[in-house]
Amino acid sequence: MKLFNTVLIAAAFATAAPTALVADEIGDAIKARQGYYKLIRANAGPLFGMAKGEVEYDAERAQMLASNLVTLTAMKNGELWPQGSDKASRPGETRALPAIWETYPAVAEKGKALVSASAALADAAGGGLDGLREKIGGLGGACKACHDDFRAKDF
Amino acid sequence: MKLFNTVLIAAAFATAAPTALVADEIGDAIKARQGYYKLIRANAGPLFGMAKGEVEYDAERAQMLASNLVTLTAMKNGELWPQGSDKASRPGETRALPAIWETYPAVAEKGKALVSASAALADAAGGGLDGLREKIGGLGGACKACHDDFRAKDF
Repeated sequence: MKLFNTVLIAAAFATAAPTALVADEIGDAIKARQGYYKLIRANAGPLFGMAKGEVEYDAERAQMLASNLVTLTAMKNGELWPQGSDKASRPGETRALPAIWETYPAVAEKGKALVSASAALADAAGGGLDGLREKIGGLGGACKACHDDFRAKDF
Repeated sequence: MKLFNTVLIAAAFATAAPTALVADEIGDAIKARQGYYKLIRANAGPLFGMAKGEVEYDAERAQMLASNLVTLTAMKNGELWPQGSDKASRPGETRALPAIWETYPAVAEKGKALVSASAALADAAGGGLDGLREKIGGLGGACKACHDDFRAKDF
């Protein structure tokens, strides 16, 4: 019933001229979840760089960054994905494909893979470059698997 | 020595015409930390709403949101605050006042207050509206104390 109400409310968003407040709620959720992935990237980016040899390996830094990924993936962010916040409903604002909602909970499996990959990386990242390199592919794979299915190439 | 190097690099940013890559590193850090505060707001906002009676109190939701705040405040985000990412260096992009860097580690004390306030709120938020109301002021106070000293009113 709660979900049904959400769908109805989302339908109202799509057809009625939304008030500024209503528009903000969806837009704020989109921006907040984009902020989440900016944080993922800010932490994952230097780890990929270390694995590629483009950023100097620093055990303490690698551990901190990987631990941040574990922390981020412990969040419960379902509220940042309201009905009506997909690319079809909000073109130009988000790359989130309608398939996220249409095939739910398939996307949740991708999320679990990101949790696992982050944990495996955090176990290894501070113990040397070889271990980091061994586990970084799991993180990249988890990112790519979700992007392939659920993220459009452009906004 | 590491800090000194960072300062030198930041000085170079400010005086030389930055390449796109260099500009992106500072800009990306600004956007990532703004994403962090959007996530803080996305989770704190409904809790303030519940305390004010504007959002229906829901124990499970309140607990989830407050736990997300605890999770977020466990991150180590020092890398998102590089030298040269203040409002004076990047006008129009950030409200972060130079005082953050000039009076460091004063800002870190504000961060610790946010950690404590989030933990206290998470202990109470799921146990009833009275408990939430008792602890929400601590969170609001922690936000305000940092904004008063370290955030400009506009970009």
